[in-house]
Amino acid sequence: MRLFLIASVLALLAGGPAFADLSLRDQAKGLFEPIPSTPPALAGDVATPDKLALGKMLFFEPRLSESQDLSCAACHNLSTGGVDGGALSGGRNAHLAGREVQTVLNAVFNKAQYWDGRAVDLKDQVVNSVMANPKAMLKTRGGPIAINPAELARTKQRVIEQFRTIPAYVEAFKKAFPDESDPLVYDNIGRAIALFETTLITPDSPFDLWLKGDDQALSDAQKAGLKLFIDKGCASCHNGVNIGGASYARFGVVKEPAPEYLPADDWGRFVVTKSLADKYVFKIPSLRNVELTAPYFHTGATFDLKKAVGVMAESQLGAQLSADETDKIVAFLLSLTGRSPEVVLPILPPRRSPPAL
Amino acid sequence: MRLFLIASVLALLAGGPAFADLSLRDQAKGLFEPIPSTPPALAGDVATPDKLALGKMLFFEPRLSESQDLSCAACHNLSTGGVDGGALSGGRNAHLAGREVQTVLNAVFNKAQYWDGRAVDLKDQVVNSVMANPKAMLKTRGGPIAINPAELARTKQRVIEQFRTIPAYVEAFKKAFPDESDPLVYDNIGRAIALFETTLITPDSPFDLWLKGDDQALSDAQKAGLKLFIDKGCASCHNGVNIGGASYARFGVVKEPAPEYLPADDWGRFVVTKSLADKYVFKIPSLRNVELTAPYFHTGATFDLKKAVGVMAESQLGAQLSADETDKIVAFLLSLTGRSPEVVLPILPPRRSPPAL
Repeated sequence: MRLFLIASVLALLAGGPAFADLSLRDQAKGLFEPIPSTPPALAGDVATPDKLALGKMLFFEPRLSESQDLSCAACHNLSTGGVDGGALSGGRNAHLAGREVQTVLNAVFNKAQYWDGRAVDLKDQVVNSVMANPKAMLKTRGGPIAINPAELARTKQRVIEQFRTIPAYVEAFKKAFPDESDPLVYDNIGRAIALFETTLITPDSPFDLWLKGDDQALSDAQKAGLKLFIDKGCASCHNGVNIGGASYARFGVVKEPAPEYLPADDWGRFVVTKSLADKYVFKIPSLRNVELTAPYFHTGATFDLKKAVGVMAESQLGAQLSADETDKIVAFLLSLTGRSPEVVLPILPPRRSPPAL
Repeated sequence: MRLFLIASVLALLAGGPAFADLSLRDQAKGLFEPIPSTPPALAGDVATPDKLALGKMLFFEPRLSESQDLSCAACHNLSTGGVDGGALSGGRNAHLAGREVQTVLNAVFNKAQYWDGRAVDLKDQVVNSVMANPKAMLKTRGGPIAINPAELARTKQRVIEQFRTIPAYVEAFKKAFPDESDPLVYDNIGRAIALFETTLITPDSPFDLWLKGDDQALSDAQKAGLKLFIDKGCASCHNGVNIGGASYARFGVVKEPAPEYLPADDWGRFVVTKSLADKYVFKIPSLRNVELTAPYFHTGATFDLKKAVGVMAESQLGAQLSADETDKIVAFLLSLTGRSPEVVLPILPPRRSPPAL
């Protein structure tokens, strides 16, 4: 009690803001958590150096794709925020799933994967997506789960058959899963990549440093933006360690967004649950590193973060933000850019067969 | 003289092979040179850490391409031997130039760049290629030089204008070229990337270790393959530090290869010199890391190194190799795989505008 009084008096002597900060930080600590400085553990799977090395190889391995030329890294570019920075409207080959790529950075902290949450965890996302036939994916919204299961099974089998012919992979799977008699199986591809992905975290963002007590880590505008972010209601969905990624919400709960943001034919999570209550419901995206993950929305409709903030305020909160409020919230959002993981490119085994389908 | 006698006697005492090795090594030393362990200097351009850092960013920068989604690294994948491992017949977007991608690894040691040698050095290759409009390239054989110069100029201007809007690049160019009043110019993009590419060298291949005196670095089969490689005449073109890359030759000098290897409509270096003597003449490719750079030939017609060796023996030397000879030559070629450069992925500045053309 005496300490608290002394602290309060010191804070008052130092000027008002320090005291206000303390209160804003307490509020923030109740809503958000910093990204940990070391990779989180995955339930039931222990990360070993051999597993992580294999996972990294596979993350960069074009031969995982049916077309033999698209790796995880092709769309989840680790130089550009774990996304490809493209817009759906560009019509690139890489945009196969009908929705904007979501970042792999900090994805381990999301409750589920994909915009509709159809993968329950990282491994599920891997084993049910990398094998997808791009041609089939182009015709479906939401990707691999819509593919004929027979075709998917055939493709998985073909990947394993191919990898068994690559001595370096036979060896790498043995080392990664030393207790298994037949380690080169499809499920282990997912396990290894998921473990590698746990290392793709971005600690030490200015916001996290501030959250942990460094008053100087945020500018006054960023603190004001954080306060607005909480007071306006943004934080009621965008909260937790990923400032999002923990729950689902109807997009357009107050006001229907324009069709470029919410096209009528993408029913979101309905496709997973078949419940009409989930029509136009999406996973709340993480705002971590949002500076790096343009374009925004599941449609990739805009590269303009201010515009994105405005659309969200209107459609989700029924709020019209002033230019100043928007600027401050964007200033806060830019404080969510963390330290990107240092990734040394793996060297992959030689290619011995053509990339044809 | 006395020393030589002692050495000879010692070699004889140690058994014949050591003496034979000495002779094969002397022969090899007259024909080949090891890859140096540190990056070579570029004429007139000093590598500084800031220039190399900028060059690496630009090498991985998708915004260098007119389509805004292809970096140098997209085709020169540093995880897969500096090539993309695709075959032209695959019809991928990335295959724009009408010929198989050549590796960027050790490219600094080539006399000129491209299959037809149309770029005199690395910088020339960069500044005359990265800006190319993929759509135009798809229609031309040989790529950017065939593009309307007006279009190319417009594109170069647009790149510079875009980069001037990215504060991190304005800063990076200032640091890389501190003595220049206007460092963010097109030519400096080429200089920085070329300098970064000098670091993409692969020293310490088994062959180089053997060349420098390590008798155990090559197997007996590999030594026999090297001897065949010299005796059959392969080394008359594939020699020097890059075991190729130093001169030009008519493909099919003894016997016309099948059209999948030498299509009639690609006249090779003729396009550069306009001399009929250069019809079907190509730069002799480096065989460094040939294990990693499949598919082979300027057409990418085969992934089978044995087949490639057979085609070359027949078409260039009029020789029919036995299966055993081919196996030995291939064993030698596999000793040309060096230590790949360790590349930490750069983190690129945020994207603020769509990738549309």
